[in-house]
Parts: sequence; C-alpha cells; structure tokens
Amino acid sequence: MLPIYRWPEKKAAERIKPAALEDLSVQAQVAEILSEVVKNGDEAILRYTERFDGCRLTKDSLRVREEEIQEAYDKVDTQFLHSLRQAKENIISFHTLQKQKDWFVQDERGSLVGQVYRPLERVGIYVPGGTANYPSSVLMTSLPAVVAGVPEIVMVTPPGKDGGIPAPTLVAAHEAGVGEIYRVGGAQAVAALAYGTESIRPVDKIVGPGNIYVTMAKKLVYGQVGIDMLAGPSEILLIGDGSVAPAYAAADLLSQAEHDKRARAFLVTNDGNWASKVREEVEKQLTSLPRENVAREALTSFGAIILVEDLEEAFAVSNFIAPEHLELLLADPWPHLAKIKHAGAVFLGPYSPEPLGDYWAGPSHVLPTGGTARYASPLGVEDFCKRSSIISYTAKGFTMAARSIMHLAEIEGLTAHGRAIGVRLEEDGL
Amino acid sequence: MLPIYRWPEKKAAERIKPAALEDLSVQAQVAEILSEVVKNGDEAILRYTERFDGCRLTKDSLRVREEEIQEAYDKVDTQFLHSLRQAKENIISFHTLQKQKDWFVQDERGSLVGQVYRPLERVGIYVPGGTANYPSSVLMTSLPAVVAGVPEIVMVTPPGKDGGIPAPTLVAAHEAGVGEIYRVGGAQAVAALAYGTESIRPVDKIVGPGNIYVTMAKKLVYGQVGIDMLAGPSEILLIGDGSVAPAYAAADLLSQAEHDKRARAFLVTNDGNWASKVREEVEKQLTSLPRENVAREALTSFGAIILVEDLEEAFAVSNFIAPEHLELLLADPWPHLAKIKHAGAVFLGPYSPEPLGDYWAGPSHVLPTGGTARYASPLGVEDFCKRSSIISYTAKGFTMAARSIMHLAEIEGLTAHGRAIGVRLEEDGL
Repeated sequence: MLPIYRWPEKKAAERIKPAALEDLSVQAQVAEILSEVVKNGDEAILRYTERFDGCRLTKDSLRVREEEIQEAYDKVDTQFLHSLRQAKENIISFHTLQKQKDWFVQDERGSLVGQVYRPLERVGIYVPGGTANYPSSVLMTSLPAVVAGVPEIVMVTPPGKDGGIPAPTLVAAHEAGVGEIYRVGGAQAVAALAYGTESIRPVDKIVGPGNIYVTMAKKLVYGQVGIDMLAGPSEILLIGDGSVAPAYAAADLLSQAEHDKRARAFLVTNDGNWASKVREEVEKQLTSLPRENVAREALTSFGAIILVEDLEEAFAVSNFIAPEHLELLLADPWPHLAKIKHAGAVFLGPYSPEPLGDYWAGPSHVLPTGGTARYASPLGVEDFCKRSSIISYTAKGFTMAARSIMHLAEIEGLTAHGRAIGVRLEEDGL
Repeated sequence: MLPIYRWPEKKAAERIKPAALEDLSVQAQVAEILSEVVKNGDEAILRYTERFDGCRLTKDSLRVREEEIQEAYDKVDTQFLHSLRQAKENIISFHTLQKQKDWFVQDERGSLVGQVYRPLERVGIYVPGGTANYPSSVLMTSLPAVVAGVPEIVMVTPPGKDGGIPAPTLVAAHEAGVGEIYRVGGAQAVAALAYGTESIRPVDKIVGPGNIYVTMAKKLVYGQVGIDMLAGPSEILLIGDGSVAPAYAAADLLSQAEHDKRARAFLVTNDGNWASKVREEVEKQLTSLPRENVAREALTSFGAIILVEDLEEAFAVSNFIAPEHLELLLADPWPHLAKIKHAGAVFLGPYSPEPLGDYWAGPSHVLPTGGTARYASPLGVEDFCKRSSIISYTAKGFTMAARSIMHLAEIEGLTAHGRAIGVRLEEDGL
C-alpha cells in the first residue's frame, strides 16, 4: 500500500517531487466569480453561496451576530475552552518574540538611515468550513495579526446548509479577537475581501489556506491586495534512523494522510528493517481509523517510504522536497539541523509529533507547501507588518555625497535626479 | 500644467488614488510568451529577443562572457567606479543591519520553540535595459541578496540591438557579485528564470522592477517561484509647510516626473502661496530639462498639488495614497513620523531629496508602488531569506500538553492527529 523506493531511483524522485499548483480550468471559473463579485457585490456573493454551499442568505444574515457568538459559548465544553486558551497563550508568546523593533543608525556627520514597522490596517483571514470545523486554524491565522497590532481582523468562512458556523470556530474567533465574521467562502469570499461589497469592506491582505478555488482566487487578486501564500496539499516528511518506535512514525504519517486524499506523507530512512515495521504499523493503525479511506488513498497515491544509504542522503532528499512539515525521528537530531535548507516547520525528537505544532506549541501551522519552502516562510507577525525605510541627511552629509550622486545620475541619463541634488548646492552655495 | 486641487475635493481624490495594475490584454500576451518558453526553451527566448529587442542572438551568446565584463571596466571612468563602490558600501552596511538572528526559547520542562533563517539558494534579478542604463538598480536588487548569503545570483537584462549591455550595468553586476548575466528581458526573461531553459537554470525567486509585461509575467509565475512585488509606475509625494526653498520641491517633483510618462508626482501643502512658487519653479526648471516632454506629460496627466488645511490633513492625504516615496519638507519633520501609516521610503528634511535614496543612502530603491505600501515593504534581506519554525518537546513537556491536544484534535474530527499523541502516551505508559 505504502510503496517503498530506493533513492536515487528515478521513480522515487518522480513520486516525491512537489506537485504543480496550476489548474487553468479552475482559473477561468475563478476569474468569472471575481468579476461577478466586482460587478454585483453582495448579490453575487449570496448567489454563489446558495449555489456552492447550498445555503440561502440575505444581506442581513451575511455577517455573524454578537448573540450567535454568545450562543456558541454555551455549546462548547469547558475542557475545549481551557485547551483553546492555553493554545492561544502559547501562540501569542511565540509570535510576540517575532516582533521587530524600529531602528536607526547615525553617522559622524549626523546623517541617519533606519527603518520603522507599521501594522497592516485591515486583514482578512480565510477559514475552511462547511462540514469541517477548524478552531485551531482561526487561532493560527488571526493571532499573529493580533500580535502585530492589526486593528481590524475580518474572518470569512463558508456556512453550512443551514447557514450555521460551528460553535468552536466562532468561540475561537471571539477568543482570538476577530472583529467581523462573514458566512462566505470559496473564491467569492476572496473577491469580497479584495474588492469589497456593500456589506464587506475590502482588506489590505488576505491570509489562510483554502481549497484550489480559494488559492487560485488569492493568486488572481494578488496586487490588488497582499496575500500570505498559495497553499497546496499538506505534506510531511519523516527522517528516521530506526531509533524511534515504529508506531510513532506510522501514527505521524497517518496524521498527515487523514487530512485529504491529496495529502503527501513520506518516510525517509537508512534502516530498511525499521521501514518495514513502520509500514506494518501503518496498515494496523489504518484499519481502525474513521477516515481510513481518505488516509489509505493518500498514502497509496502519493505517499512513499524512501530508503537511503545514510542520513546525509536523507537530508538531500528532504532538501529536494522542501517539505511543509519535517520530523527528525533521530536519536540525536540537533546536530543535523544545520543540514536543513528548506522546511516550513522542523520537529525534533520522538516527542514532537506534527499535531503538537498544529494545535499547541506556538508557531503558526500555516506553512509553505508544494516545495515553496524553498523561498517562503511560515505565516508570522511579519505578514501583518510592513517596513518603511527612513532617510534623513544633514547639510554636511548631503554635501559630502552630492558630487558622487550627481555623477551616478548623469551616467543613468537622469538629469532631473542630478538637479535635485545640484539645486541644493547652488541655493546654499555649498 | 501642474493642476492644483483643494482637499477633500472629489476631483483631488480621483486624481491621486492609486492606479490599478491589471491589464488583461497584456495578460493574454504574456501567458502565451510563458507557455512558449516552457515548450521551446532557448529557441523561444531567442525568437522573442529578436522580435522585441531587435537583436539576433544564439544559445552561445545568450550569456555574457567574462571578457565582456573586463572590457566594460575599461569603458567606465574612475569617478564612476569610485562612486559606485561607495554606494555599494552604504547599501551593504544598511542591509547588514537588517539580518535576522536565529532564536530559541526553552521552558522549565526543557521544551523548546524557535526559528532559524536560511538564505534562498538561487535568485534572479531583473534589470531594465535596452536604451536605459541602471547600474544603481543592479546594486539595489543584488546586494540585499548578497548580504542574505544567497550563493547564486542571476541577472537578466534586455540587450541593445547590437546585443550589447551597457558597460556601467556590467561593472555594477560584477562589483555586486552577480554570478551569471543573460541578455534577455521582458516576459521571456521572467519565464526563463521561473521555468528554466537549456541555457538558464530556474531560480527560486525573481526580484526587480520592469515594464507591464515583466510585472504581469511575475504575477503569472508567482507560485512556481517567489517574487518580490508587482511594481507599477514610480511615485513621489512631498509634504511641505513652506519652510523649504520652492526650487527644492520643484526639482524633487521633476526628478520623479522624468522617469516615465506615467510617473506620479504630488505636492501636498497647507501654504498656497508657497505652492504657487513651487509651480512656477517647476515650469522654469522644466524648460531646460532634456527629458522635458516626458516630465511635462507626467505632471500634466498624473501630477497634482493638493492644498490642505493643516499638516494633519496632509498626512491623511499621504496615508490615502500610501506613496512609494514620501518627502517631509518640513521645518521640524521628526515629530510627524508617527503619523505615517503607509510609505515605501520616508525622506526627512531639506537635505534628503529622493535621488539620495535612489543612489546612495543604503536602503534599496526597490519600493512598493501603486498603494501597495499598505501591505508591502521595500526590497530587503528578508526577501532573500526564509524562516523555518522549530519545535522540540521533552517527554515531560509533551505529557503535560497531550490531553489538551487530543481534545482539540477530537473537536476537529481529526482522529489520527489525536492518535499521534495518544500512541506515545500508551507506548511509554505516560
């Protein structure tokens, strides 16, 4: 079921290479949804919500009311609320450490350069919904914005057929400090956040993962607003040396595989014997899994066990994949951290399974997928701030630099640039 | 010529509101160029270079040779080289201060979270060319990558009809440490960098401004590779209180206007008398400008002087525009810095004209345009690094968290996530 390859077999590379994102058929559909929302605003949103979510709403019922949120609190148990609040605390303390400080440097002539950070003013977070129920995603997307100091955080999530949003999602949004919640999902939600409608004011940036329609919509509106990333199917790569119980590795592979039939779960090891044990464990644990079919299909179609000569080769495979999640199931993982070139999140040791990061430890679980960890980072405070460069020269500092700047401007044929310098020298007889 | 409006006149807002980027006709053309390059590689690149740049190249002449770079040094004067090297030094020292440190925090149970930074492996920088000649753009795009520690920096720039690249551009590339230079521009260059050809290996991220074709190509390849931003026409906004010589303000407006017929130059002031003087100065300085026609058309079609009641209103206008360049031509600029919500780069005081930033001071002159400073930052070291989150829990830390994580996973209906936790408790009898 879970195929085994030997690196660097060609079939192994074929199997594990990052999946391409593009799907042009979807692009055409999504482009139409965007232009419909631009043209018809709320009316278009309500129409698509009825078509795609099977839910008939009105302009008045688009936004979630305060009472609904209060009712949601009555529906969740205290254990959930306690766990959610502890997770929130962990996420906030991690991201507080990400905050950047403004800085300046001044030279001996008094001239100064530096940079200042400002929070974004209004951001939109997309939370998958419908049947699913992801309070953790609410915290992992909105809390970095809260820590950044974003004053307006807007959440969109597709409603159920009855128009309802799961109580845990609403409670998480309220706990996180989300100010506005709208029952709208898919490309139409992204369009509303990017261009605005009568009911939903546009935002400056849209974050949070969604299905292929949401992802394509984010790509198309990028430029009109900022976006965090283009998220694909979730991935995990385990590097094991046989020192950890096979049941751990098997369970971690399955925790990824149950997400989605396109989820990608890989094990890389130099211990063939241990690999077979992990594979048996996967079979054993699969049979009792409620989402057995999803997990089995994901592992069969996209999963792999890759056998390597040694750990050096294992890290070469990992850097080739640039995985979203990377677990180091090694007796002594820390010395190997330096070998990791590309990974969204790295989990070291037997007691750091990926769900620990999904729900608890603090770093956002919104991570680069599909090999984009080669250039992209986990969602963080920097997604919700921007820098401005600061330049302030003194007359003395300016005069010392003037001739060189004028010469460079002359070389580039930008006379007026040179004159902006020259006119100051003349007027002041510098 | 340079129209004057009174804020908040509706016409004033109309005039200064950010220009929309989208141009779908261009999108179709660009999409075709991309797929041609994907299909036919070098052959397509050479074909487009002949069509758009009027230059016939071969696979062998696509890449700039070492001797060409040495010859370029013989063509530039020592004053240029000296100025270029001083600018390089300033840019490197500024960006060195941007570098982030890896960090970890450990709690009393020994559990640890943190983040590490890694440079990108291979980046492509786009440098406009043809008739133009922008050594400063070479430094401003490549040096932040050098400081970040990117091992492979590839430059693309359109050749002249004779296939030549201006000597100052080649010298700047060599001084900056660019390792590969290819004579290709436009959407075909972006395609080559994103997808690769026989002669050009693909990169992880593409940075640097270009024309609308380049910008659209960057948008379309985003996801396949990272990009820095979608750059539009350059902009400047001056806020003046009448304390600075009108000739300064006029020269600074013109330094922006000469870039491009679509360049946007705005002056916002509460001193109508000073505004008229600036306007007269603009007319006076224009007449002797080699690029007079470009600058005049830009100012006439897109420029504006906006009269406001007071400086509070001036900063409201500025935050509405979110300008790429913002000059504070104020007697006492520093106290006002806190009012700036959105700006690419801020220039404080009479001796900090925008060209000082274009060529000299240190921060990259690649800045967010078209209102994108609402969510985007200047090009910097962070564009050439990515973070990885680090999570490593001890058995004790894990056990303390286990029950809460399992409960949250259960709420989300992700059984296998819960089991990845549970199996560890069982196996170890924790």
